[in-house]
Amino acid sequence: MKYDDSKNKQTLKDLLETTNFVEHISVDCVIFGFHHNKLKVLLLKYPELEIWSVPGGFVFEGENVDDAAHRTLYERTGLEKLFLEQFHTFGNINRTDLNNPHRILLENRNIQVDKDHWIYQRFVTVGYYALIDFSLSHSFPDSLNETCNWFEVDNLPKMAFDHKEVVEKGLAFLRKNLDYKIVGSNLLPEKFTMKDLQTLYETILNEKFLRNNFQRKILSLNMLERLEKFYDGSANKAPYLYRFIDKDLK
Amino acid sequence: MKYDDSKNKQTLKDLLETTNFVEHISVDCVIFGFHHNKLKVLLLKYPELEIWSVPGGFVFEGENVDDAAHRTLYERTGLEKLFLEQFHTFGNINRTDLNNPHRILLENRNIQVDKDHWIYQRFVTVGYYALIDFSLSHSFPDSLNETCNWFEVDNLPKMAFDHKEVVEKGLAFLRKNLDYKIVGSNLLPEKFTMKDLQTLYETILNEKFLRNNFQRKILSLNMLERLEKFYDGSANKAPYLYRFIDKDLK
Repeated sequence: MKYDDSKNKQTLKDLLETTNFVEHISVDCVIFGFHHNKLKVLLLKYPELEIWSVPGGFVFEGENVDDAAHRTLYERTGLEKLFLEQFHTFGNINRTDLNNPHRILLENRNIQVDKDHWIYQRFVTVGYYALIDFSLSHSFPDSLNETCNWFEVDNLPKMAFDHKEVVEKGLAFLRKNLDYKIVGSNLLPEKFTMKDLQTLYETILNEKFLRNNFQRKILSLNMLERLEKFYDGSANKAPYLYRFIDKDLK
Repeated sequence: MKYDDSKNKQTLKDLLETTNFVEHISVDCVIFGFHHNKLKVLLLKYPELEIWSVPGGFVFEGENVDDAAHRTLYERTGLEKLFLEQFHTFGNINRTDLNNPHRILLENRNIQVDKDHWIYQRFVTVGYYALIDFSLSHSFPDSLNETCNWFEVDNLPKMAFDHKEVVEKGLAFLRKNLDYKIVGSNLLPEKFTMKDLQTLYETILNEKFLRNNFQRKILSLNMLERLEKFYDGSANKAPYLYRFIDKDLK
């Protein structure tokens, strides 16, 4: 339910004239970014409106839905080759009724569209998510000229459609699958201390752990290999370094 | 992509004449059944054809997708009020090309349908799953007169569409989320032994565990409360009984 409306106002019209989208299906990507003990989510602003959405779009007739998620994410943010995974499909009948930027923009610009046009139809959206280091992903294409920004997950701006729920559900899914998702991410250097890992968990889960409890829980997952000690020259006791064992987690 | 084609051959035509489905969207339910150390999946057979599918169907225009999953499951199997959860949406372009019973039946019955008809269009299907005790769910409505059967998950018959992949992906999801799913299920009595629980895990994961390792892993999840010992009058050492703690699992 998104479009590149950046270069000029004609683009919305171009979109409306596109006839080879699959009706009723869209994709939306919730991109979580972690860096320096902050968890954020990537949002786009609609031009002229103070309404934000997660990056997403429509599916072409000859295109797999998973491929459409990668394509639209790239077109709208420049991000590519992410480990995007589905987490939920949103199919309630009223999900696009609230803060619908398409309808508002059409009205503001006085563009007449047939009431039967697909832009007014019901859309079921397939939600994808990824977890990246947001300090490494600053290169959004200028040509889009659409505001693209990282927001803290507990302080979202006014969201289009049901996208507040989409972000919240994505966050719950990330938290539930964190053990597995962290191994697949590149949020930590190859070798890290238990404290580095604990900080990452605490930030994403928004929860503090006792050091011993955390260590016991993490080690019981059998996902870490203990390496040499890390001597930083300080007077503190040197902590062990760890790395992820390369295997599928249960 | 399913229909009740049971009562007479006209039903397929009735379905084809239905105009208030949302195009391109379907739902499919993978119902796993556990009993006496067996894990099975519920499948329906198309009349006249040796092709099976998971129970599913289409979504009405004014109906939430989640509600359509419950409705179609009930209409096709008599099962209701299950804890149905989404696990994946299948959106590949060629997913209904193989073993498509609709196309085969239309051809066999020499029913002429316009090539633009929605039955020939692309469908994205939202997959749901549940885990139940199959010995408690034998009451499929006779009126449907459609063969409905439990199959062992590693011995599936010829499947319609991409439903083999749907079942396999549902099984992988069940296994990955088993800790959480077992607490929500009613597969064990209120009080059970560690051995009962281990058998359930071993059956569903198709994997054997050492008793001590299993006990240590399960207890670390903090999902069990230890109760009194279970004396069965035998000469064996009496095992403890456990029950699930009523709380959300991470």
